[in-house]
Amino acid sequence: MDYKHIFSQAIERLHKEGRYRVFIDILRNKGHFPNARCFAGHNGPTPITVWCSNDYLSMGQNPDVISAMEEALNNVGAGSGGTRNISGTTHYHSELEAELAEWHGKEAALTFTSGFVSNEATLSTIAKVLPGCVIFSDELNHASMIAGIRNSRCEKRIYRHNDLAHLEELLAAENPDLPKLIAFESVYSMEGDIAPIAAICDLADKYNAITYLDEVHAVGMYGPRGAGIADREGLADRLTIIEGTLAKAIGVMGGYIAADQLIVDVIRSYAPGFIFSTSLAPVLAAGALASIRHLKISSKEREAQQKHAALLKQMFKDAGLPVMATTTHIVPLFVGDAVKTKRISDILLNEYGAYVQPINFPTVPRGTERLRFTPGPTHNEAMLRELTDSLVAIWHRLDMRFAA
Amino acid sequence: MDYKHIFSQAIERLHKEGRYRVFIDILRNKGHFPNARCFAGHNGPTPITVWCSNDYLSMGQNPDVISAMEEALNNVGAGSGGTRNISGTTHYHSELEAELAEWHGKEAALTFTSGFVSNEATLSTIAKVLPGCVIFSDELNHASMIAGIRNSRCEKRIYRHNDLAHLEELLAAENPDLPKLIAFESVYSMEGDIAPIAAICDLADKYNAITYLDEVHAVGMYGPRGAGIADREGLADRLTIIEGTLAKAIGVMGGYIAADQLIVDVIRSYAPGFIFSTSLAPVLAAGALASIRHLKISSKEREAQQKHAALLKQMFKDAGLPVMATTTHIVPLFVGDAVKTKRISDILLNEYGAYVQPINFPTVPRGTERLRFTPGPTHNEAMLRELTDSLVAIWHRLDMRFAA
Repeated sequence: MDYKHIFSQAIERLHKEGRYRVFIDILRNKGHFPNARCFAGHNGPTPITVWCSNDYLSMGQNPDVISAMEEALNNVGAGSGGTRNISGTTHYHSELEAELAEWHGKEAALTFTSGFVSNEATLSTIAKVLPGCVIFSDELNHASMIAGIRNSRCEKRIYRHNDLAHLEELLAAENPDLPKLIAFESVYSMEGDIAPIAAICDLADKYNAITYLDEVHAVGMYGPRGAGIADREGLADRLTIIEGTLAKAIGVMGGYIAADQLIVDVIRSYAPGFIFSTSLAPVLAAGALASIRHLKISSKEREAQQKHAALLKQMFKDAGLPVMATTTHIVPLFVGDAVKTKRISDILLNEYGAYVQPINFPTVPRGTERLRFTPGPTHNEAMLRELTDSLVAIWHRLDMRFAA
Repeated sequence: MDYKHIFSQAIERLHKEGRYRVFIDILRNKGHFPNARCFAGHNGPTPITVWCSNDYLSMGQNPDVISAMEEALNNVGAGSGGTRNISGTTHYHSELEAELAEWHGKEAALTFTSGFVSNEATLSTIAKVLPGCVIFSDELNHASMIAGIRNSRCEKRIYRHNDLAHLEELLAAENPDLPKLIAFESVYSMEGDIAPIAAICDLADKYNAITYLDEVHAVGMYGPRGAGIADREGLADRLTIIEGTLAKAIGVMGGYIAADQLIVDVIRSYAPGFIFSTSLAPVLAAGALASIRHLKISSKEREAQQKHAALLKQMFKDAGLPVMATTTHIVPLFVGDAVKTKRISDILLNEYGAYVQPINFPTVPRGTERLRFTPGPTHNEAMLRELTDSLVAIWHRLDMRFAA
């Protein structure tokens, strides 16, 4: 048994497909984001502009967030020192969960170490608790939801992306007496589109299903108080479970669910990924709490972010770059080839100091490789213009097709 | 379909078995650990002594760790803003991984958001990459290892706890041409015993298996540089993968593996739980780095911890309390009944201000419920004495059996 050979082959496959990933080592400049320093392949750090951060609103740089974290650090120390059940529940966790529940208009909330874990742990556990549960899952659901659905070992039906007729067809075909769960996202982060939440809730009512909505790319970003698309559309009370992250627009780290007290109690009591993990460091809980409290009453970050996203889309469009149509803050530029996407990304970084990672399989399907830009409130108009000009130059140089 | 009824029944089962978990809401007093404030069921916080933290060496309170975290916070901000591949690799991550690799005498290391995720992601991925892999797993392996093994969907063989003869019997019964992985822990945290690592490596050599060692309860705690039991016994180079945590003796949060560059590259490239998670917040990476650098050259925390653990075991033994025999820093007191364990824990907290959580199913098998004490370097002799006296009083009051 030549283990080394098998492992080498696994890596070789990635090189061949042009999707071997090189992590770019950076340090952001606090207070000056999106400016950062890049340590990759250079002598010493070089200045770059970050275009692919999920810290959508630059809340990771917000002074209230930083000072709340500093205070927690000096109040209680570094880590929590235990799982939630064994000495790892601090007052920061309790306060954060109460805040999250209130934010989403739910009775209770529960935090996890990441959004991935919140999806995996909740979906696998809730479905297991419901005997014979059938899960209906949008075909573009995130890998963490797929992991949870897979690990539940329940029957699953995959419906075409945001296709209500297909979803209904699948629901109608099932035994009405079996428990059913519809799992979907509000904002699909690689497509930039939004699910028809109200209509999906109507179907859930009609076929007596419960619903699980992933809002990780929407919390902080949409709605009058920033609680997401369900908040914006006044639908939060129609969803059984809303899942979110503390690591994107909130700017910190961790994931959570918000739901009825009873459901939170079930997940808290039965989900291995929750039970057997050291809880979030208090410093993270404190930072997330400050960030949410800020975003509940401040819309200026959301507005500036939306403005810059719309402007960048328009600039790309005007320049004939193949920007994908989206109704959200996400600006994907279609390339459709792993090697080429990486090449453009490399030129942008090395020659223009613009950092955007290639998005390839398994994050998106093969043949739909793209660059995904996330302009934030602190990217100014000159930066957007410079980025567009750089891309146009590269498009010419690589002899790429412009849109009509 | 009455969902509420099914969920209520799931919770009712826990109440009936006496293992419904109540999280105790606390805040540690930085610089005064194990002293803390308890917010549970009281009017305002009351002072308590924490006896069940996995911050074994109080490194979560270490001034070097706190100041490294503060510096990172002020240097780059709160969260990393992305997955490792998409803008979430910072210089803190690179430095931490280089340090971890060096610590364990391996070529490379990879960090995860938690120890749970590092086990789940690595075991499920490595086994999937090896066609036909058979996994040999100690029966007392942690839930996160079980999750990884289960999610790999490979064949598995469970060997009796630390039973070399049984492990060999199972290895010998397999097709010699199939890849094999032996997964085990160094310190079993609920038993407090240690695996025969050298002998297991001998078997791995004999049957051409690779090895996966979980050292989460040992890193920071054992060995001349604190790198764990494999370090203490000079065996690190014989293990294929060593897994550890940043959340226990290191005092921060997160998990990791250390292995050959090639294996780390495979996990980094293929494990969904790694690929699709926002990376550790830079502030955590900075804290963990400072903690490890401290523990590599300082043995005084380890020595004080071992001294207090030995002293507490002796005090329990002298008092006739049913302390379980361990060769490590863990001090478990056998009760064997979920309701009684919870009752003792409640009395300790409410009447004596001593906080130790009941350990029940699924953390340990039913009928082996226990209290698990983790005295650290900052628990002094008077505290150990007071705890022992409290337990003796409770043992009398509840008419519990004393050891011969």
